[in-house]
Amino acid sequence: MFSWKRRDLIDLDIWTREEITHLLDQAVNMEALMDRPIKKVPALRGKLVVNLFFEASTRTRVSFELAEKMLSADVVNWSASGSSVSKGETLRDTAWTLEAMGADAVVVRHGAVGVPAYLAKRLKRASVFNAGDGAHAHPTQALLDLYTARRRLGELDGAKVAIVGDVLHSRVVRSDIIGFTKLGAEVVLSGPATLMPVETEALGVRYEPDPMAAVRGSDIVYLLRIQRERQQEGLFPSVDEYHRRFGATEALLAEAKPEALVMHPGPMNRGVEIASAVADGPQSVILPQVRSGVAVRMALLFLCLGGAR
Amino acid sequence: MFSWKRRDLIDLDIWTREEITHLLDQAVNMEALMDRPIKKVPALRGKLVVNLFFEASTRTRVSFELAEKMLSADVVNWSASGSSVSKGETLRDTAWTLEAMGADAVVVRHGAVGVPAYLAKRLKRASVFNAGDGAHAHPTQALLDLYTARRRLGELDGAKVAIVGDVLHSRVVRSDIIGFTKLGAEVVLSGPATLMPVETEALGVRYEPDPMAAVRGSDIVYLLRIQRERQQEGLFPSVDEYHRRFGATEALLAEAKPEALVMHPGPMNRGVEIASAVADGPQSVILPQVRSGVAVRMALLFLCLGGAR
Amino acid sequence: MFSWKRRDLIDLDIWTREEITHLLDQAVNMEALMDRPIKKVPALRGKLVVNLFFEASTRTRVSFELAEKMLSADVVNWSASGSSVSKGETLRDTAWTLEAMGADAVVVRHGAVGVPAYLAKRLKRASVFNAGDGAHAHPTQALLDLYTARRRLGELDGAKVAIVGDVLHSRVVRSDIIGFTKLGAEVVLSGPATLMPVETEALGVRYEPDPMAAVRGSDIVYLLRIQRERQQEGLFPSVDEYHRRFGATEALLAEAKPEALVMHPGPMNRGVEIASAVADGPQSVILPQVRSGVAVRMALLFLCLGGAR
Repeated sequence: MFSWKRRDLIDLDIWTREEITHLLDQAVNMEALMDRPIKKVPALRGKLVVNLFFEASTRTRVSFELAEKMLSADVVNWSASGSSVSKGETLRDTAWTLEAMGADAVVVRHGAVGVPAYLAKRLKRASVFNAGDGAHAHPTQALLDLYTARRRLGELDGAKVAIVGDVLHSRVVRSDIIGFTKLGAEVVLSGPATLMPVETEALGVRYEPDPMAAVRGSDIVYLLRIQRERQQEGLFPSVDEYHRRFGATEALLAEAKPEALVMHPGPMNRGVEIASAVADGPQSVILPQVRSGVAVRMALLFLCLGGAR
Repeated sequence: MFSWKRRDLIDLDIWTREEITHLLDQAVNMEALMDRPIKKVPALRGKLVVNLFFEASTRTRVSFELAEKMLSADVVNWSASGSSVSKGETLRDTAWTLEAMGADAVVVRHGAVGVPAYLAKRLKRASVFNAGDGAHAHPTQALLDLYTARRRLGELDGAKVAIVGDVLHSRVVRSDIIGFTKLGAEVVLSGPATLMPVETEALGVRYEPDPMAAVRGSDIVYLLRIQRERQQEGLFPSVDEYHRRFGATEALLAEAKPEALVMHPGPMNRGVEIASAVADGPQSVILPQVRSGVAVRMALLFLCLGGAR
Repeated sequence: MFSWKRRDLIDLDIWTREEITHLLDQAVNMEALMDRPIKKVPALRGKLVVNLFFEASTRTRVSFELAEKMLSADVVNWSASGSSVSKGETLRDTAWTLEAMGADAVVVRHGAVGVPAYLAKRLKRASVFNAGDGAHAHPTQALLDLYTARRRLGELDGAKVAIVGDVLHSRVVRSDIIGFTKLGAEVVLSGPATLMPVETEALGVRYEPDPMAAVRGSDIVYLLRIQRERQQEGLFPSVDEYHRRFGATEALLAEAKPEALVMHPGPMNRGVEIASAVADGPQSVILPQVRSGVAVRMALLFLCLGGAR
């Protein structure tokens, strides 16, 4: 029997395939809870979880908060604005303060790369869960993507995943590449060259400038969010032009396998990186992704805090 | 026996008199809970309620939140600033996201008319409760007003209600007219002509420019909040002048029935739409209104979510 | 047996030594709870606590919120921005509103001196706990300081406490002087003359301009936070100069007793009022102070709300 040892989730790079699949299996049980009339179990009663968000992110924060509450944890939201952080306190002191106050876990989002790892190293007892750091990692997003795909496609060995969009600024893509690759899938990236990192090969996967070619024969078409500000920065000609060339239209989707899944981390820009017909079409699993997010976060909290460890 | 069928509350216009009075009767039991040493019942344990506030409103939000917590629901506050909404997500996608995350109910306030109705149409399973949309409706305010009045006056058939103030910008007045009228009361409006909608008669009630005449013989004197910004917009001469002509002074109140109730939705501008002597006087039920707000919101949540349906 | 009678905590000035030590004794039991796997007791189940923060203060708010949740109270956060307060509602009406909604306790922080006392006078039933008002008082900080010191030094009669820093703008120092003095300790103040109130003697304790002399032979070296803005106001020459002359360096600490405690209310400015070597050194009890904060707030809530009264 598999024995869980992890306390933190900073990124999936140091997790084994076995650990990832164990968590995804647990999440199946958690998702089942979401359909019960009483969506609450006492698994984390008396545990204190602090959601420490230095960047606004309602979506991820609410998903974590719901997961925490369904497990009966006590939840405190600590946003950076107006906090001791803005009064010049070091991150280290904030971390120690949270632990001294009795936090059993800290869910942290920060604009700077490495903050969750830094906190995890300094906390003696409390778990640290990365809810997104800079353009580095967003591992619970990757877990929910893997969960969503695996529930529909079965094991992902040999599956082909095309990820299209703003790879350069995306924290999601880095965690997704690690996660899908660990589970045996093959990832190919596409999008405007101006939205690709210079060292695409450093990501360990192939870059295919032509989205049609990238998507061809794939099992999953994964669209990344395009921020309209990028246009002002001159990273692509116009939103319309972007949509025509790289957006998930029905024409693009036709290149993928007939039953290919359409995925997006949200929030969507309809008419930019994805056409509404595709977002709302029969192949879209974008809403199941949102639902999976609560389930995998419940599994994560339960495994790392719930006495299973 | 009456069987409850409603899932949502968008406005009272489509509710029957029987539905309204059934909810008000339930609220009596809820109010009784507020006096117990342990103000909590497990009626909504394991239900998830999201308070989705696109406009700041501490008062209404806190009242809902207390009602939700007294019924043991799990509560998540989702404010619009910094959320995926500000990142360009459509309202429809936000609604679907909330439902996918497992929300059983969404309490929504929005500056634009029609948002709660829009959400209710798009959500398959979750209840939608309107906490105020534009200058359109604020039905839980109307319910608490009806509750407060009915507890003191008994059935409202034939009761005369004078509503004085800024009718033009008030979401409260529209819901109150519907509610009081459905329960058989007669409503008359007063206030500066510049703060009246052009089509006053479209509201279905009489407009009486002279507040003395409007209040004369009434059972309820209901004051609407005056925003000082309206003076800059030239909608009335000055705050002092407003108070003299339309404010609830003791002189104005003397025109009403001797035991008439003084009501106000809060927050009050003392010395503008209401004199302190009246606000704190023996006829004022302004604090009982606040208390009733928690009770009627508990009844609403309980009826629509609690298995009674 | 001691019978608890207090409903509120506005400042420690009207509390007896017996009341203070009774609360500190209770806090020992509360701190023990923090080490249990399930950090939650049902002592305040069904009680409603509103955290009413007119000034941002994540640290104090989170400490109170954790204490409230560990005692199973229902918690609502009411921040001033966007609330009815910003819409011109009087403080009195806000207080009455909270009580009408069923609040059993209000934890209040406000930039103006006297707000907690004002609220306590107007609330009929609910407890008021001062979480800091202007530069006047911060009594729960004083309680946690006393608790931390007493746990390490035993009874404080005759203990010497040196408080160094920005006394002028500190709410902490005023409550600490009262608290330490009531428990029999002797307090001496130091810091730049420009950061001292004109009437230092009105504080009832000695001012010693030379920090070396102030700290000499003391049992506790208590550093106050220095706000960098004070330098722009010309209240001290520079941050470096401040650190050299008044900061808690190892040289300064060497003047105190060998086992003297180093205390700071947080958040710290490392390298300004305190050197990192001292903050993280063996004599520092700064993190235990943070932990004590939750314990004394639990004791306060429990004694004033928990039926012990």
